[in-house]
Amino acid sequence: MTITTQTPETLSSQKTRFLARQNTITNTAGYSGTNLQANLLILPEKYSQDFHNLCLRNPVACPLLGISSIPGNPHKISPTPCIRNSDFDIRTDCPAYRVYKHGKCIAANKRDLLDLWSTNDAEDQRSSENYTAFLLGCSYSFEAALCNATPPLTPRHQVTNTLVPMYRTSLPLSPAGIFTNATCTVSMRPYHESEVERVRDITRPYLATHGEPIAWGWDAVKRLGIRDIHDPDFGDKVEFGEGEVPVFWACGVTPQMAVEAAGEKIDGLVFAHEPGHMLVTDWVVEDLERLKGGIAAFRAKI
Amino acid sequence: MTITTQTPETLSSQKTRFLARQNTITNTAGYSGTNLQANLLILPEKYSQDFHNLCLRNPVACPLLGISSIPGNPHKISPTPCIRNSDFDIRTDCPAYRVYKHGKCIAANKRDLLDLWSTNDAEDQRSSENYTAFLLGCSYSFEAALCNATPPLTPRHQVTNTLVPMYRTSLPLSPAGIFTNATCTVSMRPYHESEVERVRDITRPYLATHGEPIAWGWDAVKRLGIRDIHDPDFGDKVEFGEGEVPVFWACGVTPQMAVEAAGEKIDGLVFAHEPGHMLVTDWVVEDLERLKGGIAAFRAKI
Repeated sequence: MTITTQTPETLSSQKTRFLARQNTITNTAGYSGTNLQANLLILPEKYSQDFHNLCLRNPVACPLLGISSIPGNPHKISPTPCIRNSDFDIRTDCPAYRVYKHGKCIAANKRDLLDLWSTNDAEDQRSSENYTAFLLGCSYSFEAALCNATPPLTPRHQVTNTLVPMYRTSLPLSPAGIFTNATCTVSMRPYHESEVERVRDITRPYLATHGEPIAWGWDAVKRLGIRDIHDPDFGDKVEFGEGEVPVFWACGVTPQMAVEAAGEKIDGLVFAHEPGHMLVTDWVVEDLERLKGGIAAFRAKI
Repeated sequence: MTITTQTPETLSSQKTRFLARQNTITNTAGYSGTNLQANLLILPEKYSQDFHNLCLRNPVACPLLGISSIPGNPHKISPTPCIRNSDFDIRTDCPAYRVYKHGKCIAANKRDLLDLWSTNDAEDQRSSENYTAFLLGCSYSFEAALCNATPPLTPRHQVTNTLVPMYRTSLPLSPAGIFTNATCTVSMRPYHESEVERVRDITRPYLATHGEPIAWGWDAVKRLGIRDIHDPDFGDKVEFGEGEVPVFWACGVTPQMAVEAAGEKIDGLVFAHEPGHMLVTDWVVEDLERLKGGIAAFRAKI
């Protein structure tokens, strides 16, 4: 008998998803090393074309990592390198979920979606919707690159062990179908002014996980229409050191905000991951270069 | 001997490019029916990665239709369905060109670029730069769709036979490398409020040629930071009828404005098409659906 002792960091992505399915893990930060983690948004098929267009038109805030291959089927994601195991189930393989109705969050921290999204082979068919799932890039990947830089550029919230501060902005998303009047949400990490170009250089390759900052400096606070930099809309406040300025990235909360903005226009339920409780994919950092061109490049080949 | 009488509309894309090379045509509006026409931007190879990222991060304003296959080679564009003839030359096959230095336009209405971009096999090597060309979608395609709608939604400037009005906005592009502080330029077409949803529906599929509007209504004028709707920054003024509102699309002038904003950061010359004097490509309207996912999807297959 072999006993293996694995840290969250060294777990395979499939093993992490298995633990999420068992609900034995919560926050996925630090799990499965170089594997890309994904924001999740699931909505009725009739809105999937509009949401897909929203992602294609706003790839910095909503970078696509994968989409359901077949509406209503929770097991298959395209392109296939995104999720490889055939027993995958998007209704269970996130540690926790949120449920939206008419743009409002009506349930949080749900263990799975089995009661709300039944499939045709299930006995209990409480849903007649063919849901489509969208997996969107998350900034965990470039944070690792910042920590590993020489000298390190560790994000402040990792030092303080708090949540990254996030803000609503007045920066409009390019509208797509029912998704109008949505604005970009940003995450913020303070850096010394002299470090900004290095931070830009390091995060630049991560186009599929929000990439380089969208704005930086104290001027940017007003330009982005941020209410109060010292009072984030989501996450925790961080302190600024001498000579430090705020550096802003597009944030994975944006798609959920777009669903809120669509409000009553969405008839039916929308599901998302619980913030911080991400879906760990089989993509790895080495795939980022090819992901730059969009997931269609992978779909064309397979 | 057969005499063919062809209208500009029915000329093949290759024939139109041949006429452009001969400098026997100017404005390409209406040439080569359903073929997609392209905005052109050519810059030294050392900035091509930054400009490529700018396009990928801002696909509504800067939708990619093609890129030089090999830096310095003016004959080959990738993906190959974009330009098929082997005697293509991007230095001659636009009807007219502009030249930028340090972000300023220093020459306009140039017939070709042969004196400024010599290739290795040419005797006169006045340029040591390996230029890279970017072909970007243009709104001519969706204008045809608006004209052909039932009932027609013909853009006002086509009725008045003037240039489409264009405006600078305060809407920031997502920065990429040296391309910082750039803002989106928009084109404007007036429509009755009751027509806006039809206009959105018709232009939605044209994701690779600016797609559906980014904003509409009188409120949008202020939100976009437009100085004066009755005094466009480029093109000609149009009148509004009773109940009509301005409808705004991202505009192909944006890349040239991004070069202006980069200013002194660009060492070397940048070339662009003369506005209205577009490069006619071999892409056709039927390719738009696949172009939605980005040109990488085509490059992967070939």
